[in-house]
Amino acid sequence: MLNHSDTLRFYSNRIRNLQKEMRTHNLDIIIINDDFSLRYFLGLKVISKIHLVIYSENIKTGNRAYFGALIVPNLEYEKAKDELRDIQVEVVISEDRYSINQAVEDLQEKYDFNVDKVGIDYSKITLSEFGNFCPLFSKIAQQSQINKDFGLLDGDSIENIDDYILDMRAIKDDIELEYLKKAAEISDAVMNMAIESVQEGMTENDLAAFIEYNMKKRGSEEKSFDTIVASGKNSWYPHAGATDKEIRKGDIITIDMGAIYKG
Amino acid sequence: MLNHSDTLRFYSNRIRNLQKEMRTHNLDIIIINDDFSLRYFLGLKVISKIHLVIYSENIKTGNRAYFGALIVPNLEYEKAKDELRDIQVEVVISEDRYSINQAVEDLQEKYDFNVDKVGIDYSKITLSEFGNFCPLFSKIAQQSQINKDFGLLDGDSIENIDDYILDMRAIKDDIELEYLKKAAEISDAVMNMAIESVQEGMTENDLAAFIEYNMKKRGSEEKSFDTIVASGKNSWYPHAGATDKEIRKGDIITIDMGAIYKG
Repeated sequence: MLNHSDTLRFYSNRIRNLQKEMRTHNLDIIIINDDFSLRYFLGLKVISKIHLVIYSENIKTGNRAYFGALIVPNLEYEKAKDELRDIQVEVVISEDRYSINQAVEDLQEKYDFNVDKVGIDYSKITLSEFGNFCPLFSKIAQQSQINKDFGLLDGDSIENIDDYILDMRAIKDDIELEYLKKAAEISDAVMNMAIESVQEGMTENDLAAFIEYNMKKRGSEEKSFDTIVASGKNSWYPHAGATDKEIRKGDIITIDMGAIYKG
Repeated sequence: MLNHSDTLRFYSNRIRNLQKEMRTHNLDIIIINDDFSLRYFLGLKVISKIHLVIYSENIKTGNRAYFGALIVPNLEYEKAKDELRDIQVEVVISEDRYSINQAVEDLQEKYDFNVDKVGIDYSKITLSEFGNFCPLFSKIAQQSQINKDFGLLDGDSIENIDDYILDMRAIKDDIELEYLKKAAEISDAVMNMAIESVQEGMTENDLAAFIEYNMKKRGSEEKSFDTIVASGKNSWYPHAGATDKEIRKGDIITIDMGAIYKG
């Protein structure tokens, strides 16, 4: 079992790897706004939209060094601050989604760094969110037409970091291997319970609810995809989902399910 | 209770309203790729990434008229075809995510319509997906630099349909009112069960699992957000989630949960 300081060490390694990529590609900051990456780099699970700004070099202020700032709405502030107390990230409040730009500008002024080249994850950021980021770039005005939003960008000012993150995540560190093993154990145990518990007259949804309940009881935070319970004729569809069809004697049943343990 | 033909009538009305907006804004096609909209316009629940192309006018071929085409991967084809048999949409297979462009080009050739102006939902499409769509527009080559991807777009070739869809969805039709009422009934009933069932020694996760299980058993497909069960000191965080903390005697407990009934 990994302890708290092991866990912190793995998060720090991930951030350091990303910072190394940033320097190779001359990125000044990276903006991360998706749940998976926030989990991967900070171990943080959030409900609201949250942005993490990562600097290419740690920034020292007094006794602390920060690799980045987490920009959170008011509702998440205290929880994020408590959970991240041992992690080198500054937690900053941003009141609404548009003020992410203001928050980044404030950081930039406070720490005097450039934002000439910014990394974002194209596979996670929507066109709307990108539109909201535009004021970050000095030449860009926030406009509604996509060609105006995007056409004015300096050619070297934005880079897609999708591949860096995928490459990093492809190599599993010890903490991930431990979590994956645990997720597989949960899925195995619950699959066996499902096979033993299935009864004529149960609906597919009942069995899916039973599976999800027992995964969660065993520590799975979330199903890794919508649980498939497909009986009789439904079992013919590869992506069947689960319906209110009753399971009947002699039905073939396809079950496809997976647990998620700590992201 | 609404029957099958009532339901179809509501879906058709929604599509007709969208087509009316398209004509007002001179949009030739709209491409929809998010789960919520697919549910809203077709009643379809899917696992894979699926694209719906909506035409501004229904296209007649033989005895059937289509308002659009649903572009699905092989794994979802048979299920989509069966579920949409009464809906005026043609189901087309696309083998991988890049061939969405090919599928649209094929449709365009088959039915001889323009794609001079396309509507997409900026709040649902990521920069990566948008990059994949680019070959749709004759002047655009698929390139990795965002400024090249987007800078070449003709000013009038893309429009954000986010607002049209939000405006439509803001006015609830009878079918939505019925589903919302049902979702509220499920949430109410399960909240009461949760209050009655909470016991000392249960973890917050146990209670959250109990809540989600019972919502699902009563017909909720999905929680509407991550269930919050926050006891004792955790109850102080507005967005607390649920943890493996045991609930103790005297703890204040915050529960925040919601059911989803048919989207």
